[in-house]
Amino acid sequence: MRFQIEKAVEMLSQTPSTVKSLLGNLSDDWTKNALDSENWSPFDIVGHLIHGEETDWIPRAEIILGQGENSIFEAFDRFAQFEKSKGKTINELIETFAVLRAKNIEILGEMNLDEEKLKLKGIHPELGEVTLEQLLATWTVHDLNHIKQLVTVLADRYAENVGVWKQYLSILQ
Amino acid sequence: MRFQIEKAVEMLSQTPSTVKSLLGNLSDDWTKNALDSENWSPFDIVGHLIHGEETDWIPRAEIILGQGENSIFEAFDRFAQFEKSKGKTINELIETFAVLRAKNIEILGEMNLDEEKLKLKGIHPELGEVTLEQLLATWTVHDLNHIKQLVTVLADRYAENVGVWKQYLSILQ
Repeated sequence: MRFQIEKAVEMLSQTPSTVKSLLGNLSDDWTKNALDSENWSPFDIVGHLIHGEETDWIPRAEIILGQGENSIFEAFDRFAQFEKSKGKTINELIETFAVLRAKNIEILGEMNLDEEKLKLKGIHPELGEVTLEQLLATWTVHDLNHIKQLVTVLADRYAENVGVWKQYLSILQ
Repeated sequence: MRFQIEKAVEMLSQTPSTVKSLLGNLSDDWTKNALDSENWSPFDIVGHLIHGEETDWIPRAEIILGQGENSIFEAFDRFAQFEKSKGKTINELIETFAVLRAKNIEILGEMNLDEEKLKLKGIHPELGEVTLEQLLATWTVHDLNHIKQLVTVLADRYAENVGVWKQYLSILQ
């Protein structure tokens, strides 16, 4: 599918309400506590999405568009949410994410991106040269990746309750 | 996690609005057309969820609760939606799914399920003996499984657009 900024924005716009619909009315049994230390809880995942809004996507787009001497991105802290989300409720996190995302989509609109700007490049600290278009496509897929992670974590709560049906449910494999 | 009917209903209740939030405002570029004949489009997946509401979960629960001579479930047609969804828009399908799900949650409530009823058994045509509790847990995980499928299909549209980031996005593997 050809990258078009309007189509990416369609997807970026839906994520806060999807996350709210998915998690907003669930008991703590569903949303709290990681399966184990390797896997994040829904609470952790929403915290991670917030941290991305604050430090990753738009700041990196601004670095690329600035085209200054140093267009190297700062490394992204994948574990910042464990500290930052402390004491919050999941509904507070979902609301914060929605506010930040709406603001970031507004900023994205103000960038008036065209084909030429989308080809501009920045330097990822580990991956090397990347384009603005790739950054924005990644932002979009990153949302979907974490919705996938959310439903996988939730499904796993019932991994044993489904009995012999387990073999039909790829999400439990 | 211990199975409790109220917790399962929390999850079953969120699915229509989650699907609507995820897909309701996307262009056809995102929602139409399977990746290939092996993979369903979002349009096909919502059709499949509808068919489950009509022929799978509640009808099977009723067979189990009926405890008649023949408690064998009818086989579920995994491909019925390709014919049934023809000529519909995805938003029509989403709305139909929401109406059917709301009705089915109402029927589920009227079943007044308790621990004893949840242990009642039916015969799955391929898997053999299953309990009502397992059926209801499977209904719940089946929803999450198809939300996972939806986001995976959507993410795949941008599989190449993300460039070198692809290696960081498990949903694209």
